[in-house]
Amino acid sequence: MELEAAVAKVGKYASPESGDTVELIERPSGGFSIVMVDGQGSGRGAKTLSNLVTARAVAMLKDGARDGAVARAVHDYLYGYRSGQVSATLNIISVDFQARAILMSRNNPLPYYVLSPEGLTWARESSAPIGLYPQTKPVITQHDLRENLYLIAFTDGIASAGSRYGRDPDLANFLAALPCDGTCRAQDLADMILMRAMELDEGRPNDDMSVVVLAVLPRQEDAPKIRRLLVSFPMERPYR
Amino acid sequence: MELEAAVAKVGKYASPESGDTVELIERPSGGFSIVMVDGQGSGRGAKTLSNLVTARAVAMLKDGARDGAVARAVHDYLYGYRSGQVSATLNIISVDFQARAILMSRNNPLPYYVLSPEGLTWARESSAPIGLYPQTKPVITQHDLRENLYLIAFTDGIASAGSRYGRDPDLANFLAALPCDGTCRAQDLADMILMRAMELDEGRPNDDMSVVVLAVLPRQEDAPKIRRLLVSFPMERPYR
Repeated sequence: MELEAAVAKVGKYASPESGDTVELIERPSGGFSIVMVDGQGSGRGAKTLSNLVTARAVAMLKDGARDGAVARAVHDYLYGYRSGQVSATLNIISVDFQARAILMSRNNPLPYYVLSPEGLTWARESSAPIGLYPQTKPVITQHDLRENLYLIAFTDGIASAGSRYGRDPDLANFLAALPCDGTCRAQDLADMILMRAMELDEGRPNDDMSVVVLAVLPRQEDAPKIRRLLVSFPMERPYR
Repeated sequence: MELEAAVAKVGKYASPESGDTVELIERPSGGFSIVMVDGQGSGRGAKTLSNLVTARAVAMLKDGARDGAVARAVHDYLYGYRSGQVSATLNIISVDFQARAILMSRNNPLPYYVLSPEGLTWARESSAPIGLYPQTKPVITQHDLRENLYLIAFTDGIASAGSRYGRDPDLANFLAALPCDGTCRAQDLADMILMRAMELDEGRPNDDMSVVVLAVLPRQEDAPKIRRLLVSFPMERPYR
């Protein structure tokens, strides 16, 4: 099996930088984790917040802490230091080679989607963002690693794309209609979803948009085990 | 301008996992940093070591610490806790949007290459790995951000590829001969270098191999500012 993870992000229109932060790190016991945080609001304040939260989460994950403990600790940190005044959504998506499983840890009212050869399902169990109330916990779901499985998570800017124009992204229908029987690459899927959301906002995103796609694909078992990482960043004007 | 960073990695032949670790994180002040660590030896011991060192470096960088301070602190940590008995090479490659510069912070006897429209140059100023002696410092070089610039760094497995067969990778000649006048993508360049090194080792890498390519490319300034991240990981048998 080959694991692919792809992220595509764009900031709110005319905002110098996205307030969402997504980080990907290797887990010390093998596998990797993706942390996606949408900080309340947009612009510099949201960016500082999402950077603080991901920094904390990434440091703990790199130390080997389990996802549920990380989500709880990061919530306690934000709730304690900002006195319940600031919220953020937090998704931790982990591929655990030891458990041969994918873990989705979610502090996000938004659902995530699972695309498999059996069709599209989604998890929309009620889940609260971090930072607002004492003792917030993540909702954690486990998926066995198997070929042709896709997990799709995103931030609010994707889910509410087009709302200004009375449009609904209706991601479930969009994803169900994709010709994606295990042949789609993670990057293509992430790009298609982002492009669709931007189109609904007439090319001027009304909020920061991020989408993460994790794909489990077949591979030739005798091919060399090469790991690859690629990022592309447009040059941004810096904050001062 | 568009920044691209690509990593390609493969483990030593018949070793279950690479002892090199490469992480990429977003800097809180904008831009990003890549941390590449080659832990002494190979197999699980090397992997644990490189994970420890990158975990420390990533946590400090995400907190906003400057690269030179991070390299010093990570050295002190390793030297202190392992009593000067264990070494690792450390490269931190940062794109700093505020300074409009690339910083290469190097604790690695190996050079790195710079490919620009003017040709190929390399930095081989003497630089010691971390962990062995008191007060080790990084060698830091700064490059202005400009189009069609490539930085290429790698670990020992690339530099010494083919040595078992009396071959020399001669990367300088290999890179100078590439038809790469600002049109090469970072991923293609990283792949070409890794493939070349693997070929010299007859397809059975004699050591963990990692290569990082950072590319500064032109972009259409009116295109939407989309950031992308993509990883692919072959499924590995876990350590127990």
